[in-house]
Amino acid sequence: MRVVVPFAPDRPKTRLAPVLDEAERAAFARAMLDDTLSVLSTLDGERGVSVDPLVLATAPVDCEAPVAVDDRRLTAAVDDRLPASDGDDPVTVVMSDLALATPEALARLFEPDADVVVAPGRGGGTNALVVRHPDFRVDYHGASVRDHRAIARAADLSVAHVDSFRLATDVDEPADLVEVLLHSEGEAARWLREADFTVATTDGRVDIERNSG
Amino acid sequence: MRVVVPFAPDRPKTRLAPVLDEAERAAFARAMLDDTLSVLSTLDGERGVSVDPLVLATAPVDCEAPVAVDDRRLTAAVDDRLPASDGDDPVTVVMSDLALATPEALARLFEPDADVVVAPGRGGGTNALVVRHPDFRVDYHGASVRDHRAIARAADLSVAHVDSFRLATDVDEPADLVEVLLHSEGEAARWLREADFTVATTDGRVDIERNSG
Repeated sequence: MRVVVPFAPDRPKTRLAPVLDEAERAAFARAMLDDTLSVLSTLDGERGVSVDPLVLATAPVDCEAPVAVDDRRLTAAVDDRLPASDGDDPVTVVMSDLALATPEALARLFEPDADVVVAPGRGGGTNALVVRHPDFRVDYHGASVRDHRAIARAADLSVAHVDSFRLATDVDEPADLVEVLLHSEGEAARWLREADFTVATTDGRVDIERNSG
Repeated sequence: MRVVVPFAPDRPKTRLAPVLDEAERAAFARAMLDDTLSVLSTLDGERGVSVDPLVLATAPVDCEAPVAVDDRRLTAAVDDRLPASDGDDPVTVVMSDLALATPEALARLFEPDADVVVAPGRGGGTNALVVRHPDFRVDYHGASVRDHRAIARAADLSVAHVDSFRLATDVDEPADLVEVLLHSEGEAARWLREADFTVATTDGRVDIERNSG
Protein backbone atom coordinates (compact mmCIF):
# COMPACT_ATOMS: atom_id res chain seq x y z
CA MET A 1 0.00 0.00 0.00
CA ARG A 2 1.22 3.47 -0.87
CA VAL A 3 1.74 5.37 2.41
CA VAL A 4 2.14 9.12 2.01
CA VAL A 5 3.94 10.92 4.86
CA PRO A 6 3.60 14.72 4.65
CA PHE A 7 6.58 16.61 6.06
CA ALA A 8 7.37 20.34 6.18
CA PRO A 9 11.12 20.80 6.70
CA ASP A 10 10.93 24.52 5.94
CA ARG A 11 8.60 25.49 8.82
CA PRO A 12 9.28 22.96 11.53
CA LYS A 13 6.89 22.81 14.48
CA THR A 14 6.46 26.52 15.16
CA ARG A 15 4.22 25.92 18.20
CA LEU A 16 7.19 24.34 19.97
CA ALA A 17 9.04 27.67 19.81
CA PRO A 18 8.51 28.35 23.55
CA VAL A 19 10.80 25.43 24.41
CA LEU A 20 12.94 24.72 21.32
CA ASP A 21 14.87 27.10 19.08
CA GLU A 22 14.57 26.79 15.31
CA ALA A 23 17.51 24.44 14.80
CA GLU A 24 16.25 22.24 17.62
CA ARG A 25 12.75 22.17 16.19
CA ALA A 26 14.16 21.11 12.84
CA ALA A 27 16.20 18.32 14.44
CA PHE A 28 13.30 17.13 16.57
CA ALA A 29 10.85 17.17 13.64
CA ARG A 30 13.38 15.17 11.67
CA ALA A 31 13.70 12.62 14.50
CA MET A 32 9.93 12.18 14.45
CA LEU A 33 9.97 11.66 10.67
CA ASP A 34 12.69 9.05 11.08
CA ASP A 35 10.60 7.31 13.75
CA THR A 36 7.58 7.27 11.44
CA LEU A 37 9.58 5.80 8.56
CA SER A 38 11.17 3.25 10.88
CA VAL A 39 7.77 2.11 12.16
CA LEU A 40 6.46 1.84 8.58
CA SER A 41 9.51 -0.16 7.59
CA THR A 42 8.99 -2.54 10.52
CA LEU A 43 5.35 -2.96 9.55
CA ASP A 44 6.16 -3.73 5.90
CA GLY A 45 5.54 -7.43 5.25
CA GLU A 46 3.99 -8.01 8.68
CA ARG A 47 0.29 -8.74 9.40
CA GLY A 48 -0.48 -8.98 5.69
CA VAL A 49 0.46 -5.34 5.18
CA SER A 50 2.86 -4.16 2.50
CA VAL A 51 4.09 -0.60 2.88
CA ASP A 52 5.37 1.56 0.03
CA PRO A 53 6.30 4.86 1.74
CA LEU A 54 6.53 8.26 0.07
CA VAL A 55 7.57 11.39 1.95
CA LEU A 56 5.58 14.30 0.58
CA ALA A 57 7.80 17.23 1.53
CA THR A 58 7.51 20.99 1.10
CA ALA A 59 11.27 21.11 0.38
CA PRO A 60 13.95 18.51 -0.42
CA VAL A 61 14.88 16.18 2.43
CA ASP A 62 17.35 13.30 2.57
CA CYS A 63 15.75 10.37 4.38
CA GLU A 64 15.20 6.61 4.31
CA ALA A 65 12.30 6.73 1.84
CA PRO A 66 11.51 8.16 -1.61
CA VAL A 67 10.63 11.88 -1.50
CA ALA A 68 8.27 13.94 -3.63
CA VAL A 69 8.61 17.71 -3.26
CA ASP A 70 5.38 19.68 -3.38
CA ASP A 71 5.32 23.13 -1.83
CA ARG A 72 1.57 23.61 -2.03
CA ARG A 73 -0.65 23.53 1.03
CA LEU A 74 -1.19 20.17 2.67
CA THR A 75 -4.72 19.62 1.34
CA ALA A 76 -3.79 20.20 -2.31
CA ALA A 77 -0.57 18.21 -2.10
CA VAL A 78 -2.23 15.18 -0.48
CA ASP A 79 -5.29 15.33 -2.72
CA ASP A 80 -3.09 14.86 -5.77
CA ARG A 81 -1.81 11.57 -4.36
CA LEU A 82 -5.21 10.00 -3.59
CA PRO A 83 -6.92 7.41 -5.78
CA ALA A 84 -8.24 9.37 -8.78
CA SER A 85 -10.40 6.80 -10.52
CA ASP A 86 -11.95 3.37 -10.01
CA GLY A 87 -9.30 0.69 -9.93
CA ASP A 88 -6.59 2.95 -8.52
CA ASP A 89 -4.79 1.46 -5.55
CA PRO A 90 -5.77 2.65 -2.07
CA VAL A 91 -3.60 5.28 -0.42
CA THR A 92 -2.77 5.82 3.25
CA VAL A 93 -1.75 9.19 4.68
CA VAL A 94 0.18 9.24 7.97
CA MET A 95 1.39 12.45 9.59
CA SER A 96 5.10 12.66 10.32
CA ASP A 97 4.75 13.86 13.91
CA LEU A 98 3.08 10.81 15.49
CA ALA A 99 5.99 10.15 17.82
CA LEU A 100 4.03 7.54 19.80
CA ALA A 101 3.10 5.44 16.76
CA THR A 102 4.04 1.77 16.86
CA PRO A 103 3.71 -0.93 14.18
CA GLU A 104 0.78 -2.36 16.20
CA ALA A 105 -1.04 0.98 16.26
CA LEU A 106 -0.50 1.67 12.55
CA ALA A 107 -1.49 -1.89 11.61
CA ARG A 108 -4.96 -1.18 13.03
CA LEU A 109 -5.49 1.31 10.17
CA PHE A 110 -5.65 -1.55 7.71
CA GLU A 111 -8.12 -3.75 9.61
CA PRO A 112 -11.47 -2.11 8.81
CA ASP A 113 -12.80 -2.83 5.33
CA ALA A 114 -14.23 0.65 4.75
CA ASP A 115 -13.92 3.14 1.89
CA VAL A 116 -12.29 5.57 4.30
CA VAL A 117 -10.55 4.79 7.59
CA VAL A 118 -9.85 7.70 9.92
CA ALA A 119 -7.56 7.92 12.94
CA PRO A 120 -8.68 11.13 14.67
CA GLY A 121 -6.08 13.42 16.16
CA ARG A 122 -6.49 15.47 19.30
CA GLY A 123 -8.15 18.83 18.69
CA GLY A 124 -10.19 17.77 15.69
CA GLY A 125 -7.31 16.70 13.46
CA THR A 126 -6.97 13.70 11.15
CA ASN A 127 -3.68 12.03 11.97
CA ALA A 128 -3.97 9.05 9.65
CA LEU A 129 -6.29 8.12 6.85
CA VAL A 130 -6.79 5.19 4.49
CA VAL A 131 -8.57 6.09 1.27
CA ARG A 132 -9.90 3.29 -0.96
CA HIS A 133 -12.36 5.23 -3.10
CA PRO A 134 -11.74 7.91 -5.77
CA ASP A 135 -14.71 10.03 -4.64
CA PHE A 136 -13.02 11.00 -1.37
CA ARG A 137 -11.11 14.27 -1.08
CA VAL A 138 -9.18 15.65 1.92
CA ASP A 139 -9.60 18.96 3.70
CA TYR A 140 -7.01 19.42 6.42
CA HIS A 141 -8.03 22.94 7.35
CA GLY A 142 -9.88 23.34 10.67
CA ALA A 143 -11.70 20.45 12.35
CA SER A 144 -10.67 18.04 9.62
CA VAL A 145 -12.02 14.92 11.30
CA ARG A 146 -15.51 16.39 11.12
CA ASP A 147 -15.00 17.59 7.56
CA HIS A 148 -13.65 14.22 6.45
CA ARG A 149 -16.72 12.48 7.86
CA ALA A 150 -18.95 14.95 6.02
CA ILE A 151 -17.06 14.54 2.74
CA ALA A 152 -17.39 10.77 2.98
CA ARG A 153 -21.08 10.98 3.88
CA ALA A 154 -21.78 13.32 0.97
CA ALA A 155 -20.13 10.83 -1.40
CA ASP A 156 -22.03 7.91 0.19
CA LEU A 157 -18.79 6.24 1.31
CA SER A 158 -18.37 3.96 4.32
CA VAL A 159 -16.19 5.31 7.14
CA ALA A 160 -14.44 3.47 9.97
CA HIS A 161 -12.55 5.00 12.89
CA VAL A 162 -9.42 3.72 14.62
CA ASP A 163 -9.53 4.49 18.32
CA SER A 164 -5.83 4.90 19.21
CA PHE A 165 -4.19 7.22 21.73
CA ARG A 166 -0.86 6.66 19.95
CA LEU A 167 -2.25 7.76 16.60
CA ALA A 168 -4.26 10.61 18.16
CA THR A 169 -1.15 12.17 19.66
CA ASP A 170 0.53 14.45 17.15
CA VAL A 171 3.31 16.46 18.71
CA ASP A 172 2.64 20.16 18.26
CA GLU A 173 2.90 21.89 21.62
CA PRO A 174 5.21 21.78 24.63
CA ALA A 175 2.69 19.74 26.67
CA ASP A 176 2.82 17.03 23.99
CA LEU A 177 6.49 16.39 24.79
CA VAL A 178 5.36 14.75 28.04
CA GLU A 179 3.61 12.08 25.98
CA VAL A 180 6.78 11.40 23.98
CA LEU A 181 8.86 11.00 27.14
CA LEU A 182 6.28 8.74 28.82
CA HIS A 183 5.18 6.56 25.90
CA SER A 184 7.90 6.37 23.25
CA GLU A 185 11.29 4.70 22.96
CA GLY A 186 12.08 6.06 19.51
CA GLU A 187 14.53 8.61 18.12
CA ALA A 188 12.34 11.55 19.10
CA ALA A 189 12.21 10.42 22.73
CA ARG A 190 15.97 9.85 22.69
CA TRP A 191 16.49 13.33 21.20
CA LEU A 192 14.43 14.92 23.99
CA ARG A 193 16.32 13.03 26.68
CA GLU A 194 19.66 14.06 25.19
CA ALA A 195 18.40 17.65 25.13
CA ASP A 196 17.90 17.24 28.92
CA PHE A 197 14.12 17.18 28.94
CA THR A 198 12.51 15.21 31.76
CA VAL A 199 8.99 14.72 33.09
CA ALA A 200 8.37 16.92 36.13
CA THR A 201 5.48 16.54 38.55
CA THR A 202 4.55 19.57 40.60
CA ASP A 203 1.45 19.58 42.83
CA GLY A 204 0.28 16.46 41.06
CA ARG A 205 0.40 18.21 37.66
CA VAL A 206 2.69 16.80 35.01
CA ASP A 207 4.89 18.95 32.79
CA ILE A 208 8.22 18.92 31.00
CA GLU A 209 11.33 20.37 32.55
CA ARG A 210 14.66 21.15 30.93
CA ASN A 211 18.00 21.16 32.68
CA SER A 212 19.86 23.70 30.60
CA GLY A 213 22.89 23.60 32.84
CA MET B 1 -16.40 -7.72 37.52
CA ARG B 2 -16.49 -5.02 40.16
CA VAL B 3 -16.00 -1.67 38.38
CA VAL B 4 -15.15 1.24 40.68
CA VAL B 5 -15.97 4.72 39.35
CA PRO B 6 -14.40 7.49 41.46
CA PHE B 7 -16.43 10.70 41.51
CA ALA B 8 -15.90 13.98 43.41
CA PRO B 9 -19.22 15.87 43.57
CA ASP B 10 -17.87 18.34 46.13
CA ARG B 11 -15.09 19.81 43.95
CA PRO B 12 -16.30 19.43 40.40
CA LYS B 13 -13.84 20.04 37.58
CA THR B 14 -12.11 23.17 38.86
CA ARG B 15 -9.92 23.50 35.74
CA LEU B 16 -13.07 24.18 33.70
CA ALA B 17 -13.70 27.36 35.74
CA PRO B 18 -12.60 29.63 32.85
CA VAL B 19 -15.66 28.53 30.83
CA LEU B 20 -18.20 27.10 33.30
CA ASP B 21 -19.44 28.47 36.64
CA GLU B 22 -19.62 26.20 39.66
CA ALA B 23 -23.22 25.05 39.17
CA GLU B 24 -22.50 24.34 35.50
CA ARG B 25 -19.37 22.38 36.36
CA ALA B 26 -21.38 20.28 38.80
CA ALA B 27 -24.07 19.59 36.20
CA PHE B 28 -21.53 18.78 33.48
CA ALA B 29 -19.51 16.48 35.77
CA ARG B 30 -22.73 14.73 36.67
CA ALA B 31 -23.62 14.28 32.96
CA MET B 32 -20.23 12.66 32.42
CA LEU B 33 -20.81 10.31 35.38
CA ASP B 34 -24.20 9.36 33.94
CA ASP B 35 -22.56 8.68 30.57
CA THR B 36 -19.97 6.45 32.22
CA LEU B 37 -22.62 4.47 34.11
CA SER B 38 -24.72 4.18 30.98
CA VAL B 39 -21.80 2.80 28.97
CA LEU B 40 -21.01 0.32 31.75
CA SER B 41 -24.63 -0.76 31.86
CA THR B 42 -24.66 -1.30 28.08
CA LEU B 43 -21.47 -3.33 28.35
CA ASP B 44 -22.85 -5.57 31.13
CA GLY B 45 -23.56 -9.00 29.72
CA GLU B 46 -21.98 -8.24 26.34
CA ARG B 47 -18.71 -9.69 25.01
CA GLY B 48 -18.42 -12.02 27.97
CA VAL B 49 -18.11 -9.09 30.37
CA SER B 50 -20.22 -8.75 33.49
CA VAL B 51 -20.15 -5.34 35.13
CA ASP B 52 -20.92 -4.66 38.79
CA PRO B 53 -20.52 -0.88 39.12
CA LEU B 54 -19.75 1.03 42.33
CA VAL B 55 -19.50 4.82 42.42
CA LEU B 56 -16.79 5.74 44.90
CA ALA B 57 -17.80 9.29 45.81
CA THR B 58 -16.31 11.91 48.10
CA ALA B 59 -19.86 12.90 49.12
CA PRO B 60 -23.33 11.36 48.72
CA VAL B 61 -24.69 11.28 45.18
CA ASP B 62 -27.95 9.91 43.83
CA CYS B 63 -27.26 7.99 40.63
CA GLU B 64 -28.01 4.81 38.69
CA ALA B 65 -25.50 2.65 40.57
CA PRO B 66 -24.61 1.75 44.17
CA VAL B 67 -22.53 4.46 45.90
CA ALA B 68 -19.84 4.19 48.56
CA VAL B 69 -18.86 7.47 50.21
CA ASP B 70 -15.19 7.88 51.03
CA ASP B 71 -13.81 11.36 51.46
CA ARG B 72 -10.15 10.39 51.54
CA ARG B 73 -7.80 11.16 48.67
CA LEU B 74 -8.26 9.16 45.48
CA THR B 75 -5.27 6.86 46.01
CA ALA B 76 -6.31 5.76 49.52
CA ALA B 77 -9.98 5.37 48.60
CA VAL B 78 -9.26 3.26 45.51
CA ASP B 79 -6.56 1.21 47.21
CA ASP B 80 -9.08 0.00 49.78
CA ARG B 81 -11.24 -1.43 47.00
CA LEU B 82 -8.51 -3.41 45.21
CA PRO B 83 -7.99 -7.17 45.59
CA ALA B 84 -6.37 -7.61 49.01
CA SER B 85 -5.38 -11.26 48.98
CA ASP B 86 -5.04 -14.22 46.63
CA GLY B 87 -8.41 -15.40 45.42
CA ASP B 88 -10.07 -11.99 45.66
CA ASP B 89 -11.96 -11.03 42.53
CA PRO B 90 -10.31 -8.63 40.07
CA VAL B 91 -11.30 -4.97 40.24
CA THR B 92 -11.55 -2.39 37.46
CA VAL B 93 -11.25 1.35 38.06
CA VAL B 94 -12.70 3.72 35.48
CA MET B 95 -12.60 7.50 35.88
CA SER B 96 -15.95 9.28 35.72
CA ASP B 97 -14.86 11.95 33.24
CA LEU B 98 -14.17 9.81 30.17
CA ALA B 99 -16.90 11.46 28.12
CA LEU B 100 -15.74 9.76 24.91
CA ALA B 101 -15.87 6.24 26.33
CA THR B 102 -17.96 3.70 24.43
CA PRO B 103 -18.83 0.09 25.29
CA GLU B 104 -16.37 -0.97 22.55
CA ALA B 105 -13.54 1.08 24.06
CA LEU B 106 -14.16 -0.12 27.62
CA ALA B 107 -14.51 -3.74 26.50
CA ARG B 108 -10.90 -3.60 25.31
CA LEU B 109 -9.82 -3.28 28.97
CA PHE B 110 -10.88 -6.86 29.59
CA GLU B 111 -9.13 -8.45 26.59
CA PRO B 112 -5.51 -8.69 27.80
CA ASP B 113 -4.84 -11.51 30.24
CA ALA B 114 -2.40 -9.53 32.41
CA ASP B 115 -2.13 -8.93 36.16
CA VAL B 116 -2.60 -5.23 35.51
CA VAL B 117 -4.18 -3.57 32.47
CA VAL B 118 -3.64 0.17 32.05
CA ALA B 119 -5.42 2.67 29.82
CA PRO B 120 -3.12 5.71 29.90
CA GLY B 121 -4.64 9.16 30.05
CA ARG B 122 -3.29 12.24 28.42
CA GLY B 123 -0.66 14.04 30.49
CA GLY B 124 0.62 10.97 32.31
CA GLY B 125 -2.65 9.92 33.93
CA THR B 126 -4.20 6.49 34.37
CA ASN B 127 -7.77 6.70 33.14
CA ALA B 128 -8.72 3.06 33.55
CA LEU B 129 -7.13 0.11 35.24
CA VAL B 130 -7.86 -3.59 35.67
CA VAL B 131 -6.20 -5.13 38.73
CA ARG B 132 -6.12 -8.91 39.05
CA HIS B 133 -3.37 -9.32 41.65
CA PRO B 134 -3.30 -8.36 45.36
CA ASP B 135 0.30 -7.13 45.20
CA PHE B 136 -0.64 -4.11 43.08
CA ARG B 137 -1.32 -0.73 44.69
CA VAL B 138 -2.35 2.52 43.04
CA ASP B 139 -0.68 5.92 43.19
CA TYR B 140 -2.70 8.55 41.35
CA HIS B 141 -0.48 11.47 42.29
CA GLY B 142 1.71 12.89 39.50
CA ALA B 143 2.61 10.86 36.39
CA SER B 144 0.58 7.89 37.56
CA VAL B 145 0.96 5.84 34.40
CA ARG B 146 4.71 5.75 34.97
CA ASP B 147 4.28 5.02 38.67
CA HIS B 148 1.78 2.25 38.02
CA ARG B 149 4.20 0.59 35.60
CA ALA B 150 6.95 0.83 38.23
CA ILE B 151 4.73 -0.55 41.01
CA ALA B 152 3.79 -3.52 38.81
CA ARG B 153 7.40 -4.12 37.79
CA ALA B 154 8.58 -4.00 41.42
CA ALA B 155 5.96 -6.64 42.31
CA ASP B 156 6.91 -8.76 39.27
CA LEU B 157 3.42 -8.42 37.77
CA SER B 158 2.55 -8.52 34.07
CA VAL B 159 1.24 -5.27 32.58
CA ALA B 160 -0.74 -4.68 29.39
CA HIS B 161 -1.74 -1.34 27.88
CA VAL B 162 -4.92 -0.42 26.05
CA ASP B 163 -4.21 2.07 23.27
CA SER B 164 -7.44 4.08 23.10
CA PHE B 165 -7.97 7.75 22.31
CA ARG B 166 -11.45 7.52 23.85
CA LEU B 167 -10.11 6.19 27.14
CA ALA B 168 -7.12 8.57 27.08
CA THR B 169 -9.37 11.62 26.91
CA ASP B 170 -10.40 12.68 30.40
CA VAL B 171 -12.18 16.01 30.35
CA ASP B 172 -10.37 18.48 32.59
CA GLU B 173 -9.72 21.65 30.63
CA PRO B 174 -11.63 23.90 28.23
CA ALA B 175 -9.75 22.48 25.22
CA ASP B 176 -11.04 19.01 26.10
CA LEU B 177 -14.61 20.15 25.45
CA VAL B 178 -13.79 20.13 21.73
CA GLU B 179 -13.25 16.39 21.93
CA VAL B 180 -16.63 15.88 23.59
CA LEU B 181 -18.41 17.89 20.91
CA LEU B 182 -16.60 16.11 18.06
CA HIS B 183 -16.56 12.53 19.31
CA SER B 184 -19.43 11.92 21.73
CA GLU B 185 -23.19 11.59 21.44
CA GLY B 186 -23.82 11.15 25.18
CA GLU B 187 -25.40 13.27 27.89
CA ALA B 188 -22.25 15.35 28.37
CA ALA B 189 -22.19 16.29 24.69
CA ARG B 190 -25.89 17.10 24.77
CA TRP B 191 -25.35 19.24 27.90
CA LEU B 192 -22.62 21.24 26.13
CA ARG B 193 -24.77 21.76 23.04
CA GLU B 194 -27.69 22.92 25.16
CA ALA B 195 -25.32 25.31 26.94
CA ASP B 196 -24.61 26.75 23.47
CA PHE B 197 -21.08 25.46 23.05
CA THR B 198 -19.97 24.82 19.48
CA VAL B 199 -16.72 23.95 17.75
CA ALA B 200 -15.12 27.03 16.23
CA THR B 201 -12.30 27.01 13.70
CA THR B 202 -10.23 30.14 13.42
CA ASP B 203 -7.12 30.29 11.24
CA GLY B 204 -7.22 26.52 11.01
CA ARG B 205 -7.06 26.17 14.82
CA VAL B 206 -9.93 24.45 16.57
CA ASP B 207 -11.48 25.74 19.78
CA ILE B 208 -14.79 25.92 21.63
CA GLU B 209 -17.06 28.90 21.34
CA ARG B 210 -20.07 29.79 23.45
CA ASN B 211 -23.04 31.84 22.27
CA SER B 212 -24.12 33.42 25.54
CA GLY B 213 -26.77 35.49 23.86
